[in-house]
Amino acid sequence: MRTSIATVSLSGTLTEKLTAAARAGFDGVEIFENDLLASPLAPREIRARCADLGLTVDLYQPMRDVEAVPAELFARNLRRARHKFTLMRELGADTVLVCSSVDPEAVDDDALAAAHLYELADLAQDFGVRVAYEALAWGRHVSTYDHAWRIVEAAGHPALGTCLDSFHILSRGSDPQGIEDIPGEKIFFLQLADAPLPAMDVLQWSRHHRCFPGQGGFDVAGLVRHVLRTGYAGPLSLEVFNDVFRQAEAAPTAVDARRSLLALQEEVGAVRETGPSAAPTAAPAVPAPVVPTGFAFAELVTADSEPLTGLLAALGFARTARHRGKPVDLWQQGEARILVNTGTAVRRDGTRIAAVGLESPDPAGAADRAEALLAPVLPRRRAPEDAPLDAVAAPDGTELFFCDAGNGARHTGWRADFEDVGRPPAAPGVRRIDHLALTQPWHHFDEAALFHRSVLGLDAEDSVDVADPYGLQRSRAVSNPDGTVRIVLTVGAAPADDTVHAQHIAFATDDVVAAARRLRDAGAPLLPIPANYYDDLAARHEFADGELETYRELGILYDRDEAGGSLRHCYTRTVGRVFLELLQRDGGHRGYGARNAPVRLAAQHAVRAARALGDG
Amino acid sequence: MRTSIATVSLSGTLTEKLTAAARAGFDGVEIFENDLLASPLAPREIRARCADLGLTVDLYQPMRDVEAVPAELFARNLRRARHKFTLMRELGADTVLVCSSVDPEAVDDDALAAAHLYELADLAQDFGVRVAYEALAWGRHVSTYDHAWRIVEAAGHPALGTCLDSFHILSRGSDPQGIEDIPGEKIFFLQLADAPLPAMDVLQWSRHHRCFPGQGGFDVAGLVRHVLRTGYAGPLSLEVFNDVFRQAEAAPTAVDARRSLLALQEEVGAVRETGPSAAPTAAPAVPAPVVPTGFAFAELVTADSEPLTGLLAALGFARTARHRGKPVDLWQQGEARILVNTGTAVRRDGTRIAAVGLESPDPAGAADRAEALLAPVLPRRRAPEDAPLDAVAAPDGTELFFCDAGNGARHTGWRADFEDVGRPPAAPGVRRIDHLALTQPWHHFDEAALFHRSVLGLDAEDSVDVADPYGLQRSRAVSNPDGTVRIVLTVGAAPADDTVHAQHIAFATDDVVAAARRLRDAGAPLLPIPANYYDDLAARHEFADGELETYRELGILYDRDEAGGSLRHCYTRTVGRVFLELLQRDGGHRGYGARNAPVRLAAQHAVRAARALGDG
Repeated sequence: MRTSIATVSLSGTLTEKLTAAARAGFDGVEIFENDLLASPLAPREIRARCADLGLTVDLYQPMRDVEAVPAELFARNLRRARHKFTLMRELGADTVLVCSSVDPEAVDDDALAAAHLYELADLAQDFGVRVAYEALAWGRHVSTYDHAWRIVEAAGHPALGTCLDSFHILSRGSDPQGIEDIPGEKIFFLQLADAPLPAMDVLQWSRHHRCFPGQGGFDVAGLVRHVLRTGYAGPLSLEVFNDVFRQAEAAPTAVDARRSLLALQEEVGAVRETGPSAAPTAAPAVPAPVVPTGFAFAELVTADSEPLTGLLAALGFARTARHRGKPVDLWQQGEARILVNTGTAVRRDGTRIAAVGLESPDPAGAADRAEALLAPVLPRRRAPEDAPLDAVAAPDGTELFFCDAGNGARHTGWRADFEDVGRPPAAPGVRRIDHLALTQPWHHFDEAALFHRSVLGLDAEDSVDVADPYGLQRSRAVSNPDGTVRIVLTVGAAPADDTVHAQHIAFATDDVVAAARRLRDAGAPLLPIPANYYDDLAARHEFADGELETYRELGILYDRDEAGGSLRHCYTRTVGRVFLELLQRDGGHRGYGARNAPVRLAAQHAVRAARALGDG
Repeated sequence: MRTSIATVSLSGTLTEKLTAAARAGFDGVEIFENDLLASPLAPREIRARCADLGLTVDLYQPMRDVEAVPAELFARNLRRARHKFTLMRELGADTVLVCSSVDPEAVDDDALAAAHLYELADLAQDFGVRVAYEALAWGRHVSTYDHAWRIVEAAGHPALGTCLDSFHILSRGSDPQGIEDIPGEKIFFLQLADAPLPAMDVLQWSRHHRCFPGQGGFDVAGLVRHVLRTGYAGPLSLEVFNDVFRQAEAAPTAVDARRSLLALQEEVGAVRETGPSAAPTAAPAVPAPVVPTGFAFAELVTADSEPLTGLLAALGFARTARHRGKPVDLWQQGEARILVNTGTAVRRDGTRIAAVGLESPDPAGAADRAEALLAPVLPRRRAPEDAPLDAVAAPDGTELFFCDAGNGARHTGWRADFEDVGRPPAAPGVRRIDHLALTQPWHHFDEAALFHRSVLGLDAEDSVDVADPYGLQRSRAVSNPDGTVRIVLTVGAAPADDTVHAQHIAFATDDVVAAARRLRDAGAPLLPIPANYYDDLAARHEFADGELETYRELGILYDRDEAGGSLRHCYTRTVGRVFLELLQRDGGHRGYGARNAPVRLAAQHAVRAARALGDG
């Protein structure tokens, strides 16, 4: 199906919005009236710009407060409409959106509404324009899609149809099943938006907090399926009012928007063929998801490797290999592999997680899917002698490498670039990477969650708010079904220096107490946890003799889930933007210790403050 | 009455929060458990710190999910409570908040709830602790204050009372009248918060969007009056969960909080005496409001006065006086007076509005009130030879001077420092300052509105959201009853470089067309407005022949209100952070042209972009 986006969904001037929509691959746009009013371009110049960019003008919107009003007011409305239809002819827009009236003078009279819409459509027809009537969720008398359709049906004019909007339908809790009773050719337009649940006042919710399909809580795909069953052949169009998108750069927002529609089309089984035909097809052009099966490695870049490799050595890692052409070392313990790269860091960035290797049953397929879903593809070889590797960039800039995990030839691709210089320890304390926590840029949190779900095929949990002493943090975990790939996406409540929010790597161990002791005895201090935390643990749970004292001594945090599973974990000091976590899961605990996160964050602030005073 | 604040209302570490609360003049604090858990200080050290700061620990909170649960679970809860009561004794806290249960295992059984609370209170009594039971708005079985009180009454234990929270009561739409049926001595605590209307899901609303009394939509004062009629003698305490306050600096937030309580106490007629007695009194210590009656002047600081004075001259202003001791010129036309100060600007700030002179019937009284409401008082004389002037700083740093407006001696105070060098024009095009628009720092918008209402006695209108191409702006107008003082407070939707959002001065004229022509003919370009805007005006309204063409030619914007009043206004280019507006009100139009603001903002962005390209 053709895809379209309302200009109000993007930030900037009208021409910036058009350019961003075209570059992201949309077929058309809805022109939002205020964007046109504020533009120095005349309507025919806008039409020409759209044509140059390969965009059709699918809708002009909105016209408000037209129908079911006193006669004198309706006459003024028709006069206004004549102006707008003239403008639309110059603009090359053949469909206008008319929202159900919120005018205090509007009356609750369906017959009058139908008569007025008939007159409006009759006038529109003279200009080659079609009228798409839509029920606003907060319309004065018409607020549901079926009510709007009854009025359109009663009017019975060929230039009058209805416009369906997923936000207005789903925010009212209407049953979208009834859409199938509308003939597809009378659905003149379909606007899509998702929104987070639970709800606030519906007007505020609509104007500020819509999001792209797949980023909220609505079953947008279910609604689209009903629409497609009617025979609707118009575009899928995104109309999203969102405070964040208004401020974000238009180009990445447009890409995020298109990715959301591609994922939606896949979900409803209607992706446009890549060939010249634009008809819906059952065979999606987006390759099927290839879910990663484990972490091949995590790559840290650092200008000064000493603090980091000191920590790794204290944790029991050994330097086992060296890249043949670049200043990159492989540190290994069990199945946990860390690349330490001193070649590309700039001191300003500090130490950070730059890349993640994901074990994949089909690296090329995973990369093809990522590319089809608009992920930037990275060069397959960094240097002529390197083994070819499939890699893409995540929205936060982290490089994701798809590494072969099949047929016993694990890691052959990337591992071939490394020359052995040592062996991993025989009896590891750390078994593997349990999860990575990656800080997302403020404007890209929902985009990141959608990316990891759609591009990598991971499952997303609900997001969790965690109180930091200086603001809320939000985090959302994505993982594969068996929990061997877990990534926690985090973001601050407002924009801040990225370096404020650290990233981390959590290592799974079978004996967190022994691992923590080894770390401490090797001279790497653990994050000190306040005594008050342990007094609270004593109030909440009963422990074996000495158990709590051990945790207190080492700074081990504790969590128990409802099924009795337990999580014990502790943290190293932070190096650059990165800290490390040791973590032991028992009894099937699948969480990340969100309950403990405020204490950990406050402890990290305390260490930072002490350092600033020169005594840390 | 004593005043208190919950530590969760402020940002930072526990010790930062305590210090900020004490400096703002609070008598006590509620210690939020998570703040204690994350603190490296032991409970007795926290107690000592509070004592040093002159703060009492009025409440420890919260204890959750205690009552009406299965016996085994209740036994565990009592065990937990014993730990917490021990801690409270060390902390010096004698009241604990117990929230109504949200535990899925809790049963709907008031008798069991009462029995459990009785047992809890009995245990508490052994530790010298009182239990204050509160209904959470989303409590599983107990969600209203009267229900919580019935259970407390049925339990009938001397160490058990109720805690009232304005958020939980008013967010449910409960009638606070019923509070008067509770004996005051059984109201153990009163927590106050306001919140914006309309509502979203109540839990989200509560956790993220509470605000200080007077900054939201609740009738908090009405509720407090009911509580005081019961004989309640405990503190007024603020418990505010707010995403912005979590990030803002604690010290100004604490001042904002105390100001809100002082204004609230004034409203309910119970301000603490300034003497040693802490009893409520009918004679407030805060002097009565002195509402300003006009603008005496606006002061602009600039490192380079040429562009600014060029604009003023083109508008018809004349330089009429010069400060005797400082590089400050007075430019005047009609009753509009602009001070141009080249002495204190630093080039980095650009040209900006630094001070506002407000005509006041009682400058000293206005300053006394401002000081009592915690506004920073500025030195009365800047230099030994200057006339003494009462002045305070607004939250955004703007200096507010209270200038004598009484008995024909207008402006004698400040004007005496200036020596005449010219005369104002005989037939002014500009009559006076209509309004000032002042950009507020992101975290201080609600604070600014409360400041202008409470300190200056101005009335606040509802806030309005306006779409800028790169994000929403919110604005809120405050004014005196006859509209001779109007200030529009504005803020971006997210933090941004302050210089992005300009300030402006709007001048009232009786003939905007003539004034605009004069400006243009004097070589000062008006802000160009897109042609599409005028085509839309033509669609909306009917105009006399040639009228619209005149507006189009000059860039005059037009608005009509529902009563037929009209507003016509146009804008100069921006100098530094400041631009000027010419404005004509007819037929009693009281607005500011919010409908036109998106077009104006886009036009200003276009000018800036063109300048960046070197052709503006």
